[in-house]
Amino acid sequence: MNVIKTAEILCVGTEILIGEIVNTNAAYISSRLAEMGISQYHQGVVGDNPERLRAFLTSALSRCDLVILTGGLGPTYDDLTKETVADVMGRKLELDPRSLERVKSYFDRLGRKMTDNNIKQAMMPQGCEVFDNDVGTAPGCAIEDGESGKCVIILPGPPREMKDMFEKKVAPFLEKRREYVLYSESLNIFGMGESAVEDALREFMEASENPTVAPYAIDGECRLRVTARAKSREEGREKVKETEKKILESSVGPYVYGVDTTLEKTLVSLLRDKNMTVTFAESCTGGLLAGRLTSVPGASDVFDGGVVSYAERVKHDFLGVKSETLEKYGAVSAECAVEMAKGVRMFVGADLGVSVTGLAGPGGGTEEKPVGTVFIGVSDKSGERAVELHIRDNGREYVRNIAVKNALFEAVKNVGESVCTRSRGDDH
Amino acid sequence: MNVIKTAEILCVGTEILIGEIVNTNAAYISSRLAEMGISQYHQGVVGDNPERLRAFLTSALSRCDLVILTGGLGPTYDDLTKETVADVMGRKLELDPRSLERVKSYFDRLGRKMTDNNIKQAMMPQGCEVFDNDVGTAPGCAIEDGESGKCVIILPGPPREMKDMFEKKVAPFLEKRREYVLYSESLNIFGMGESAVEDALREFMEASENPTVAPYAIDGECRLRVTARAKSREEGREKVKETEKKILESSVGPYVYGVDTTLEKTLVSLLRDKNMTVTFAESCTGGLLAGRLTSVPGASDVFDGGVVSYAERVKHDFLGVKSETLEKYGAVSAECAVEMAKGVRMFVGADLGVSVTGLAGPGGGTEEKPVGTVFIGVSDKSGERAVELHIRDNGREYVRNIAVKNALFEAVKNVGESVCTRSRGDDH
Repeated sequence: MNVIKTAEILCVGTEILIGEIVNTNAAYISSRLAEMGISQYHQGVVGDNPERLRAFLTSALSRCDLVILTGGLGPTYDDLTKETVADVMGRKLELDPRSLERVKSYFDRLGRKMTDNNIKQAMMPQGCEVFDNDVGTAPGCAIEDGESGKCVIILPGPPREMKDMFEKKVAPFLEKRREYVLYSESLNIFGMGESAVEDALREFMEASENPTVAPYAIDGECRLRVTARAKSREEGREKVKETEKKILESSVGPYVYGVDTTLEKTLVSLLRDKNMTVTFAESCTGGLLAGRLTSVPGASDVFDGGVVSYAERVKHDFLGVKSETLEKYGAVSAECAVEMAKGVRMFVGADLGVSVTGLAGPGGGTEEKPVGTVFIGVSDKSGERAVELHIRDNGREYVRNIAVKNALFEAVKNVGESVCTRSRGDDH
Repeated sequence: MNVIKTAEILCVGTEILIGEIVNTNAAYISSRLAEMGISQYHQGVVGDNPERLRAFLTSALSRCDLVILTGGLGPTYDDLTKETVADVMGRKLELDPRSLERVKSYFDRLGRKMTDNNIKQAMMPQGCEVFDNDVGTAPGCAIEDGESGKCVIILPGPPREMKDMFEKKVAPFLEKRREYVLYSESLNIFGMGESAVEDALREFMEASENPTVAPYAIDGECRLRVTARAKSREEGREKVKETEKKILESSVGPYVYGVDTTLEKTLVSLLRDKNMTVTFAESCTGGLLAGRLTSVPGASDVFDGGVVSYAERVKHDFLGVKSETLEKYGAVSAECAVEMAKGVRMFVGADLGVSVTGLAGPGGGTEEKPVGTVFIGVSDKSGERAVELHIRDNGREYVRNIAVKNALFEAVKNVGESVCTRSRGDDH
């Protein structure tokens, strides 16, 4: 049996080329291959066109050990993946009685009559390993060429069928043929940008070959991916943890708030550990902050509710923000943020109150308070504080999203443990 | 200027090859190219590796008029897209002072010091057309080769930056180089699924060649894209409007709530027209409904604030939901939804009160109330009503998102005008 070290994914479907559907199949298969330590250097999409499919399949086979194709297995005349692959691999198609039975019984279960064009779905390349489709009609298969050592795997296009078949049939098939495993973790960083992180760690990253260390920006945060190649997951995890320890001891360490997590998950678990509750008073974020926290299952353990205080009237009537404060400093001010945070903490009855008030735009900005000016208020039994942010005016949704992240981060910091200590904690 | 008829997209990024992110950039660009009538026969993804990028770029250029690359423009040492493209196109990189200024001022606005590695982002291929990045640092560009007539466009990888640059810079650039103009509008449909719409309009759609009519599902809604090929935008718009009129007169008409809009925008403008205000009491959506409404600039005209009543205590204390109601029917019930809607309307003092209570999962489902059971309550001066939803359990975020959309839709319906009438109105 040949070891499979490299693979390419080739997705067949015009609907991808016209942007009708997002290619989630490629992402799913890619992450699974990465977990198995099978490297991928290229990925392709072609329409339902046999000539182009043949060309790309041939060149892909010249580059790697395994080509995984998805799509084009249906009963219709323009579904030609299997035919093309068989041709390229020098195999004939022959009827697989067992597959035909399965297709028939699938239609029986649906109480429908199988039309003849479905027989096509049971025609399989000679000498292939057939992969049953437990959630659809079209079976998949693997074709291995003894001489060249090359392998082609064909999977159905519908993500539900592809995933089911991948987990039940393809994963075990590849398990027998892989060389090593890759273990990967991402450090969550807040308050330090991608290029600053890269600047601080360049030498370290360039020196790291196994594990590798790579920064990437996602959704207003920076992450550091640490990936180790090893014989087992356990060995990989050990290597990764060693490297993470070094990173946490670097100048980046204080900005690391967790591993493979999010600010909202971190806040919920911190609060749960300390048996504390939080509440929010939101102006410019208009509910997004509470919405983000409650995206975490079990958020109800630490969150009873909050107030969206969009109008000054609501800030005053429900949260007790003083009229003088609103007149003297305005609703977008540290003073108002502090009163909102304290007010909502009292109003809802929580250990921690966090408020957001600011200018999300597009209108409302002034010389001294431009769009992007946001104040985060924090209140607990020990008192109140406010943080002033100047978020770049990249549009209303951007300002609101970054405000939410900063509010979550201030809450995380306030729950007591140094974020860095906590992350170090993950290490021991 | 050469006419561009065919294109390929080449996305650069190891994070795609290891399945860490889904390649939404390719889908976005593909659909926009399709709208412009530019054909695509192949699409590729390569890692941050100059040799392979060179190979794939060269072969792509041999097949089509235009290659669009995304990603690998960052400041870090492994970002090599621009360098490789310049090399393949036989251009040198030179410092673009204007771009450098923009990168510097980006950091200034963030109050951060620009690290030297960022200068790299201002190095542009000689003779290219620079595309400013208004929402990030890395500029993009277009390189046209007079002799071969081939064109390469480079765009940043982060979807937010890529989309902004595509709409502001790339679309106008391609506009000048395409054979004809395409004018496209999308009808917003709610309460009727994609396949139902397809069934209702199949013959009509098959008969429509110019404009073409295509349904697509997006974010829990169905849209009908009507696209006309014409000599001018005006001519295209006329053709599209004629076709839209026919659709609005079909059985799909009553489910059309607008054209190129969203439920939240529709609700805000309806309320503004009627000089009404709305408020929300949210349980399972935890603030997302208010967050969605306040994503619309000027939402403050129609929304003073709302309550996130996550715990029963908050439902009872602030919204006046009766203890008997909670004991007898539970928090996830039509009775509770109605009391929440009325309660929040009184509490905040608004014309319309809308509530959401339900089971978003993963836990908490029962035999008679499975995950996905959601009640929407509506209250206005004429009384209260509740709607019961059974949302497919496609995960917590899906259930919450569909609940938000249904709440917005119930509010839209309640503001009085028939949604269909309104859409017809757009037409006259």
